[in-house]
Amino acid sequence: MAIEPIEGFLSSAADLSEYIAALLQAGGASSESAEAVARAVVDASSRGVDTHGVRLVPWYIQMLEGGRVNKTPNVTFTKKAAAVGHVDADNGFGHLASFRAIEEGIALARECGVAAVTAGRSTHHGASGVYALAAARAGFAAISMTHADPAVVPFGGTKPFYGTNPISFAVPAPGEEPMLLDMATSSIPYNRIFLRRSTGTPLPPDVAVTPQGEVTTDPFKATAVLPVGGAGFGYKGAGLAAMVDILCSAFSGMGHGFTIDPLAGTDYTKTIPIGHFFLILNPAIFQALATFDARVGAFLADLRRQPAQPGQKVMAPGDVEKAEAARRAANGIPIDRTTWASLAETAERYGCTVPPSRPTSSGKEATA
Amino acid sequence: MAIEPIEGFLSSAADLSEYIAALLQAGGASSESAEAVARAVVDASSRGVDTHGVRLVPWYIQMLEGGRVNKTPNVTFTKKAAAVGHVDADNGFGHLASFRAIEEGIALARECGVAAVTAGRSTHHGASGVYALAAARAGFAAISMTHADPAVVPFGGTKPFYGTNPISFAVPAPGEEPMLLDMATSSIPYNRIFLRRSTGTPLPPDVAVTPQGEVTTDPFKATAVLPVGGAGFGYKGAGLAAMVDILCSAFSGMGHGFTIDPLAGTDYTKTIPIGHFFLILNPAIFQALATFDARVGAFLADLRRQPAQPGQKVMAPGDVEKAEAARRAANGIPIDRTTWASLAETAERYGCTVPPSRPTSSGKEATA
Repeated sequence: MAIEPIEGFLSSAADLSEYIAALLQAGGASSESAEAVARAVVDASSRGVDTHGVRLVPWYIQMLEGGRVNKTPNVTFTKKAAAVGHVDADNGFGHLASFRAIEEGIALARECGVAAVTAGRSTHHGASGVYALAAARAGFAAISMTHADPAVVPFGGTKPFYGTNPISFAVPAPGEEPMLLDMATSSIPYNRIFLRRSTGTPLPPDVAVTPQGEVTTDPFKATAVLPVGGAGFGYKGAGLAAMVDILCSAFSGMGHGFTIDPLAGTDYTKTIPIGHFFLILNPAIFQALATFDARVGAFLADLRRQPAQPGQKVMAPGDVEKAEAARRAANGIPIDRTTWASLAETAERYGCTVPPSRPTSSGKEATA
Repeated sequence: MAIEPIEGFLSSAADLSEYIAALLQAGGASSESAEAVARAVVDASSRGVDTHGVRLVPWYIQMLEGGRVNKTPNVTFTKKAAAVGHVDADNGFGHLASFRAIEEGIALARECGVAAVTAGRSTHHGASGVYALAAARAGFAAISMTHADPAVVPFGGTKPFYGTNPISFAVPAPGEEPMLLDMATSSIPYNRIFLRRSTGTPLPPDVAVTPQGEVTTDPFKATAVLPVGGAGFGYKGAGLAAMVDILCSAFSGMGHGFTIDPLAGTDYTKTIPIGHFFLILNPAIFQALATFDARVGAFLADLRRQPAQPGQKVMAPGDVEKAEAARRAANGIPIDRTTWASLAETAERYGCTVPPSRPTSSGKEATA
């Protein structure tokens, strides 16, 4: 749960947002597409969710340049019933379709109390938690899910079948940012295997398997990851992954995760359509808001005062990221050297301006 | 995931339902309360979910006789918006309130596409999956959740804070019973610690802790269970438990799990109010039903044909229980000796008739 330190360059959220939106627009993306991606990745990075933050932008630029993503999608919303709607992403960036789904879901839930909005013909949308959090910042509770291409073995299996299929839940909390749970239903991210090959360090026990399905801590023998719960209780993580997959496919009209081409594949010319699922709840319909806030506040207060193991602290979902967000708001958002260099190279090609930054280690201002 | 064999007596679902309903009514329960409990526990037992099946009836009878549960509750439904409603259980059996919530939720979701129904001033409702499954058997998808009194330590903590807070998801599947995920967000049920003390066998690794929060496999040292994900990744299980708790408390108007008196406590005179949360989705609003069925069918077929580890088989959520349900439909439902004797004792006190049965081992018909 700890945030891994990043060596590279520090920049502000405002500068990074403007920079990323400018790069994507220079690459041909519509202004609303570019702004949605910038908003999503900077929101993730500002909270320390670096795996799903600015780091993804060079990859998104490859998608844009290759044609996998529609640069100027005609995103449309269809209301299917009083409390249900569908967003057609038109193969554009999933971030745009997902923010739209939340916005439309809020409008439906304001009246109906709850709304379910699916998105289809979409693409990678970064951190699912971004969208649940956006709803909660507007006073609504939300669940956000996406399915993805296979990376996780089913319980008792040997080959990847499920995506990392995250579940996010956000709820407004009195006097602070919303509580946010944002978790993959896999035990670890798939790319941690490759990271551990680079660093030469073993994987945690009970998270990855060999091609024969044997649990291994050797990153060179591991080829797939287990669902959360591991070899003993992975049927729980796999069951949650199944739920996410069905809600994001059968309900959205997309194929299930096993039918999705590899998102990490190097053919950037072909669209890889995926689906998302969003649920929005209007707390004011369920309870008087003062009562609701008091309940959530009491839950968080009781949880945070629980006795902890030596050297630890009992925290609520998202507390680690809240503390990191405060640090980053004060010190800047760190971007790793590889990502920074890649963005700078794109900026040069596109004739965009690189924003001011300073190295993470020296604390001195770098030349822009 | 395997179903543990039970030594005792075999009886039919129809006979057990009638017997249990008769016992509860003889104990003073209203006919609708008695029938709801019988339906729920026999449904669970018929699928091999013995922990939450007929085994619970002697406990429910204690609650009824002690006064913890209102024998003749006035269960009411309040529509709060087009797609939201609340069931007041009036301190009656949670089973009655939960079936009512599903019924009302289906009515709302039929029009609105989705509905959220909370239940409050409720009590234990057995297996949460029973209610999601009831919706799915009627052609709707559903999520069912309940919170409970503390049994699970928060991530990094030493003392129980969360209930076992299950998440259930059911969806109609073409040509077979609905797919059902029904999982506690704890690694193991709390009472497995006590079971392992009785049998003298160690607990699995990474599921239980000492009063100091140290992971232990010694059932005599263990005093609490970890969330699913264990010591390494238990923040995921704990995060899901937090989501369940908030949906079942702040949204239903009940206090959060930590404020709930021990359900296993021996004072049966005092009510212990808890909340549940149900979400119902109408697939026909999202997609043409033929398309929807084809998607779910393709998901299940692809999953079940995945390569498995030696001696294993890749299964969908609920497949183990489906196979067991077929066996039990043919051979009868096994009830353990202790439960059977307790029910027979109650039947004698109340002047009820014990149904026909035969011992599980001999295969011969016992005298009724």
